[in-house]
Amino acid sequence: MKHVDFYFDLSSPYSYLAATQIDAVAARSGAQVRWRPVVLGAVFKTAGNDMPARVPAKAVYMLKDLERWAEEYGVPFRFTSRFPLNAMKAMRCIVAAEEKSLEGALSLALFRAVWVDDRDVTDPAVLREVLAGVGLDPDATLAATDTQSVKDRLRAYTDGALGLGAFGAPTMVVGDALFWGNDRLHFVEKALRG
Amino acid sequence: MKHVDFYFDLSSPYSYLAATQIDAVAARSGAQVRWRPVVLGAVFKTAGNDMPARVPAKAVYMLKDLERWAEEYGVPFRFTSRFPLNAMKAMRCIVAAEEKSLEGALSLALFRAVWVDDRDVTDPAVLREVLAGVGLDPDATLAATDTQSVKDRLRAYTDGALGLGAFGAPTMVVGDALFWGNDRLHFVEKALRG
Repeated sequence: MKHVDFYFDLSSPYSYLAATQIDAVAARSGAQVRWRPVVLGAVFKTAGNDMPARVPAKAVYMLKDLERWAEEYGVPFRFTSRFPLNAMKAMRCIVAAEEKSLEGALSLALFRAVWVDDRDVTDPAVLREVLAGVGLDPDATLAATDTQSVKDRLRAYTDGALGLGAFGAPTMVVGDALFWGNDRLHFVEKALRG
Repeated sequence: MKHVDFYFDLSSPYSYLAATQIDAVAARSGAQVRWRPVVLGAVFKTAGNDMPARVPAKAVYMLKDLERWAEEYGVPFRFTSRFPLNAMKAMRCIVAAEEKSLEGALSLALFRAVWVDDRDVTDPAVLREVLAGVGLDPDATLAATDTQSVKDRLRAYTDGALGLGAFGAPTMVVGDALFWGNDRLHFVEKALRG
């Protein structure tokens, strides 16, 4: 079966926007999404990149641009009051959720918590609520985030993305073709069809 | 009449790609393009931005991405062997061409010289040829590039773009809405229709 590997960080608003579309993009080509959380800070550091919002005029523009995309897609969006946020624990939950094949559902639920409901996903109580909401056992999942295998897997996804040439998020990979940005989903779809 | 102000630097490959489309985008909404060359180096410096190609993995990706867009648009594209290039003189020619209302035609001809034919637009002989090709008097136009009014106008466009919030190129402005990037032409078209 065809796959698109979707590399994202929950703290990235463009990753949220792309996440709202990626299942449909893949489905239209009979492909499946593989959800791959990555630590964007590590990607930036290793790639020698920086947060786009470091450029003041770009930060102002991005707020407007994000709203335009949300309107285009017809999805809710509210810029989090907690930016930049450390979503490490939440992303380890996503990795842990793979065991129950709920990583996609959990990714979307966590994206909504951050980029729609302005919730604090660094707070274990919030995480528990979101985990339970998608049918995961909060205790078991949170316990798994402290295991070396889950930590290692999140690191492996991050290193894997870097190895493929990623320098930001979201990054989509189809075969050996890499695409960067919510605004390249049309190229991803073309690649899946090609 | 509705307008879209198209701020560009000849040295920017994404500006070239957008330039190949902007007339059609405007025409579909009964709008007109105002061609506004800007000195991208000055925009980057004042905005605190940097060339995207400074990030090695991004530079690699961009070459592929530019090819994808050229294919999508069905336009020829070859990355110039002279990058980064100083297109100051050529952009002053565009400003000087306003007197004959040939700034659009000259912009497109110069973009082709740089991003299709790999010509050296810092060479006055090349400039003369391109100028003559669009029906401009090479001597008169080159002489005008040394006048203060032409120099000031190029600077005014650059400062104007910065004043509107620009931080890169291409930048498109419709009314008070600013759009950045070849990949936002669909939003430009929406704004022109709205």
